[in-house]
Amino acid sequence: MNRIYADNCATTKVLPKALAAMIPFFSGEYGNPSAIHSFGLEAKKALDRARNKVAQSLGAMSSEIFFTSGGTESVNWAIYSAAELGQSKGRHIISTAVEHKAVLEFLAKLKIKGYEVTLLTPDRLGRVYPEQLAQIIRDDTILVTMMLANNVVGTTSNLKEFCRISHAKKALFHTDAVQAAGHLPLDVRALDIDMLSISSHKFHGPKGVGALFVKIPKLPKAMIEGGGQERGARSGTENVPGAVGMAVALQEAVRDNQENFTRLTKMRDRLIEMVLTVPKAELTGDPVNRLPGHASFVFEGIGHGANLVSRLNEDGICVSSGAACSASSKEGSHVLAAMGFEGQLAQNTLRVSLSRFNTLQEVELIAQRIAFWVPKIQQARR
Amino acid sequence: MNRIYADNCATTKVLPKALAAMIPFFSGEYGNPSAIHSFGLEAKKALDRARNKVAQSLGAMSSEIFFTSGGTESVNWAIYSAAELGQSKGRHIISTAVEHKAVLEFLAKLKIKGYEVTLLTPDRLGRVYPEQLAQIIRDDTILVTMMLANNVVGTTSNLKEFCRISHAKKALFHTDAVQAAGHLPLDVRALDIDMLSISSHKFHGPKGVGALFVKIPKLPKAMIEGGGQERGARSGTENVPGAVGMAVALQEAVRDNQENFTRLTKMRDRLIEMVLTVPKAELTGDPVNRLPGHASFVFEGIGHGANLVSRLNEDGICVSSGAACSASSKEGSHVLAAMGFEGQLAQNTLRVSLSRFNTLQEVELIAQRIAFWVPKIQQARR
Repeated sequence: MNRIYADNCATTKVLPKALAAMIPFFSGEYGNPSAIHSFGLEAKKALDRARNKVAQSLGAMSSEIFFTSGGTESVNWAIYSAAELGQSKGRHIISTAVEHKAVLEFLAKLKIKGYEVTLLTPDRLGRVYPEQLAQIIRDDTILVTMMLANNVVGTTSNLKEFCRISHAKKALFHTDAVQAAGHLPLDVRALDIDMLSISSHKFHGPKGVGALFVKIPKLPKAMIEGGGQERGARSGTENVPGAVGMAVALQEAVRDNQENFTRLTKMRDRLIEMVLTVPKAELTGDPVNRLPGHASFVFEGIGHGANLVSRLNEDGICVSSGAACSASSKEGSHVLAAMGFEGQLAQNTLRVSLSRFNTLQEVELIAQRIAFWVPKIQQARR
Repeated sequence: MNRIYADNCATTKVLPKALAAMIPFFSGEYGNPSAIHSFGLEAKKALDRARNKVAQSLGAMSSEIFFTSGGTESVNWAIYSAAELGQSKGRHIISTAVEHKAVLEFLAKLKIKGYEVTLLTPDRLGRVYPEQLAQIIRDDTILVTMMLANNVVGTTSNLKEFCRISHAKKALFHTDAVQAAGHLPLDVRALDIDMLSISSHKFHGPKGVGALFVKIPKLPKAMIEGGGQERGARSGTENVPGAVGMAVALQEAVRDNQENFTRLTKMRDRLIEMVLTVPKAELTGDPVNRLPGHASFVFEGIGHGANLVSRLNEDGICVSSGAACSASSKEGSHVLAAMGFEGQLAQNTLRVSLSRFNTLQEVELIAQRIAFWVPKIQQARR
């Protein structure tokens, strides 16, 4: 059976070009970048080139890019670092109720250690507003952390005004750009952002590698300690093939961004149009300001979205009911709950996330099969 | 020029068989193991198989293996977890002065946070003794962490008695087995150890992946928080190809362990024999209880070992002056300093670390070139 993969917010296929770039560094140029012999030097050069590419793709400088093991580590580290650096200023952190668990769970840990955390409440479309931030930011606020694009409902934010308000109070601003990087145009200078987290496998790079941007002259406080790699900020032998693969994938994504954006937006809107003819279907998230390939819905009366995901899987269609990490969880999405979707409805979810590898034909087939299954499930549960 | 790679304690070539096992998971079976559709399920299966293989290779159970981004994270996490779990018991931790910086730097951070750290002092061969531990262990000791094999001088330890003493005081025992795994026979049950850290790229697996063994029924305290992967203990989308590659490499290493051990020991001893004919050469570390492929020396009067490493590199021979992470540092090795090598001498170091891919012919050539260069450098510096 020819399968259709449309769960690209969970993870993506590695670009053949990115994989090809990685291969030489496994069994050929496999040196440790810290070694001073020829194997070490060629690994170091590859790592430097990868760092340059990532920096250029984000409008950053090479010295502002730190490699990590992925988006979750990047996000944890950004918050950890801000907490450590802000010790003399205060212990207040602001975020939003729709962040990824990598943010919310790490903040929960900081709360236990005596930090105060305030979360902005989104509206029904998953949007928060600069005025909300302006009202609650304080002199002892050390960090504001907000995502650029939401993984569950696809809503994207213009962060510029949030950054300005944060900086006026001398708070650092971090954005979880894990879903945005490679999919939306990104420029750390234009945003005037202090820290930004990305994850390679969300834009057709390999799993197990990510990066944290930290605006100079600040150096992040090390969370993982040891041999002093990444200028002392992140110890551990560098994942050279991973960094190389991520850099190529990001560069390709940025190069093709305009084209992919237009094409994916069209396919997404066609999908939404078709799915909204289904009884009791509602689009979740902002219909306009949203990730180009992201369509998410609630369908009243289908029980947990996993029911629908399983039926579609039998058709060879791979989509999800929301965040991958909570795919099999019985809990409703904390994101939808925060947006005002109550009780059962926050579980009746479906997320279709497209990539450059999808076609319009696939998208229409997905919509048809959703339209086929939803009424069947609704009826069976009545 | 045909190069000779003999810096295998820094990093190793990925086994072609391990790389081949990884390839399908980049651009084919690239699902997120948390997803419940077919792509997700096949990724989850691959991850489970990898976990089983790693567990079997260490004499552990599958549920005792947690994947990480590498040895440094594993070691940091083990200590972090022990500190969190031990809060009601005390704040005293015991280690040794010859540990890797991943241990020592993380302990330094804990000291700032109010923990007390006692380091055992090694003898001139890098050995510590159970009696030393017995003398200083206390009721409020929560953790004893000691490496199985030293990266700088190759000395290996029999940890069984150290474990027994630790457990008698209800302290957890962790070992940094980064240099030992895949090179020495390892059985977590026979050692009766609580935690053990390994790093894939030290035994011909890929960089950017490692594991932490934690004896059931204990669950480690999460250091990296988020989506709740690895049973809530280590969040972040799992590095499926990395875990698969590591598992194959470790399985191969364990299968061939006896054969490699015998062959490498012979080559190593031939190298040591030849190099000790060089003027003012001294073997560092234990001549008997040492890693099979590891030979390390000090040569009085050569200045920093990097001088010798650079000359050998011109010959196409890739070795190091000690730990990779401090290869270009001006500091002498903290390990040699702790062993009583004073001042300049702790810098006059060379480490040759062999793998299954080296031949006796290569080893003899390495020894000849060392014998050629050392007197030249000594003379030039007189």
